[in-house]
Amino acid sequence: MMSLVCLSLRLRAAGCHGSRRSVATVVSGNKTASLVRQRLQMEVQEMRSVLSGFRPGLLVLQVGDRADSNLYISAKLRAAAQIGIDAKHLRLPSSATQDQVLQSVLSINADPAVHGLIVQLPLDSVNPMDPERITNAVSPEKDVDGLSCINAGKLSRGDLKDCFIPCTPNGCMELIRQTGVSVAGKQAVVIGRSKIVGAPMHDLLLWSNATVTTCHSKTLDLPEQVGRADILVVGAGRAEMVRGDWLKEGAVVIDCGINHIPDERKLSGHRVVGDVHFASASQRAGFITPVPGGVGPMTVAMLMENTVQSARHFLLKIQAGG
Amino acid sequence: MMSLVCLSLRLRAAGCHGSRRSVATVVSGNKTASLVRQRLQMEVQEMRSVLSGFRPGLLVLQVGDRADSNLYISAKLRAAAQIGIDAKHLRLPSSATQDQVLQSVLSINADPAVHGLIVQLPLDSVNPMDPERITNAVSPEKDVDGLSCINAGKLSRGDLKDCFIPCTPNGCMELIRQTGVSVAGKQAVVIGRSKIVGAPMHDLLLWSNATVTTCHSKTLDLPEQVGRADILVVGAGRAEMVRGDWLKEGAVVIDCGINHIPDERKLSGHRVVGDVHFASASQRAGFITPVPGGVGPMTVAMLMENTVQSARHFLLKIQAGG
Repeated sequence: MMSLVCLSLRLRAAGCHGSRRSVATVVSGNKTASLVRQRLQMEVQEMRSVLSGFRPGLLVLQVGDRADSNLYISAKLRAAAQIGIDAKHLRLPSSATQDQVLQSVLSINADPAVHGLIVQLPLDSVNPMDPERITNAVSPEKDVDGLSCINAGKLSRGDLKDCFIPCTPNGCMELIRQTGVSVAGKQAVVIGRSKIVGAPMHDLLLWSNATVTTCHSKTLDLPEQVGRADILVVGAGRAEMVRGDWLKEGAVVIDCGINHIPDERKLSGHRVVGDVHFASASQRAGFITPVPGGVGPMTVAMLMENTVQSARHFLLKIQAGG
Repeated sequence: MMSLVCLSLRLRAAGCHGSRRSVATVVSGNKTASLVRQRLQMEVQEMRSVLSGFRPGLLVLQVGDRADSNLYISAKLRAAAQIGIDAKHLRLPSSATQDQVLQSVLSINADPAVHGLIVQLPLDSVNPMDPERITNAVSPEKDVDGLSCINAGKLSRGDLKDCFIPCTPNGCMELIRQTGVSVAGKQAVVIGRSKIVGAPMHDLLLWSNATVTTCHSKTLDLPEQVGRADILVVGAGRAEMVRGDWLKEGAVVIDCGINHIPDERKLSGHRVVGDVHFASASQRAGFITPVPGGVGPMTVAMLMENTVQSARHFLLKIQAGG
């Protein structure tokens, strides 16, 4: 079913046919995330009608008390509450040892009321911690961040139906879908190869049948590579690095960057920009996501999507008597 | 240390400087595999001097009795014996059930004398089998084929030091190293996205810092994509698909294809060709692997490499008292 946002984007795109496009259509993550949340809210209500009193359960495990982590966790808990997910926050003190953190993960793995478990990174502990080991201790069936090796392996080898997809690239795919531009056969370019953005983004575009090029800090001819992209996803972590004149006319541009740059006109003394230079890029792209209000809100929405998906599997298992 | 083959390839390449290259240097998999086997043989002898009587152990688990599987298994057992690996072949009847196969895998996982376990595919059984499930039952520490989700996940996310790399792409990397051409910053193109060739090949080239493009059956402009490749790896499964005039002058061309085409001049009525049209490609490439005698022999050599690597880990653990 075509959503209203999608329909409106298509109509705007259609209106530009035949004439040179001068300003890109802005793809709003705020609007798209809101639609996703509405859909999930209805789905949770439906689950409750199937099994009285049932609620999808999400647990956020935090070590320590970083201010930025606290902000992110609040946003997640708020979004979950709005949808009807039973979200809990477990905070271990920064004096916790790795063994204690692992013990907590294992006991949450065994709790049937929790369908999604995320470990808030970075771990703020006075003790040595191996984040990889802790992330991989999360049961693959509850790993709604999609960061464990097993989920990464399935995604990278094309088993998309049988894994949790990391939230940021999953949100990017949803935004690309909203443009109405088909991915199959297109030239896609991903800048960045991180575990949470670039690498899984490559996988998603590849298994949606795009021809995918991955660029990174060692790429020598970045503007030329970018100029070939029908679909460009940027997760480079460098403020306004991608300039408008690099882009292919009409490209879909998805910006995962969140960078703070000095701005004396702001009370805070800084403003948030993406990895793409928005002003010039929007003169050349066909579709572009803003920063803020683009990919950011989608990440939290997709975490909710994965949690509801996990709860759905749990319910199906119960119904099958398994 | 630069090997003799590598040095000789470099000298040949250097001789072409300044003039238009007319015939590519052929990168022999037979020679390179032989050097790998010699190195491994010495390493196994060294292990035996460290722990008297110790031998790396490899087990090939087969279900049924396919003639082609029997041939491949013989080649593996022969190569293992030559190096000093204790290789065993366990054949279950085609009447075996999936549970019986899984039970065998679990009992081999627990056997400390086996450092590498491979399940020969396809499984030739009269009963329904889920090859994914069986492959993933192999302990990640013994998965010398590198086909389990966990090893695929680590490779795809760049943890190359902590995983087994699938043998065919690992062999391709060894052949690329033999050319002396550096990978970092180069444009690499991979044709194919299979679990055993294309997808892990992408990962290896990416984490060697190439800018990598993955092409496949849905790629619309394959000749154009191929024409940009400094390094081209082809695992498409289509006889002589890549033509010489598609190539960038001087490219490194690695051909993973093994295809049988009719040839009435042969007694067998057919001959084996790769996915690259060798005659035309060798007029334009800088380096090219032949078929047969290119990637093929490297696959078995790299299986031995992984088995010896696994045994090395085992020995280190024993020495550490773990």
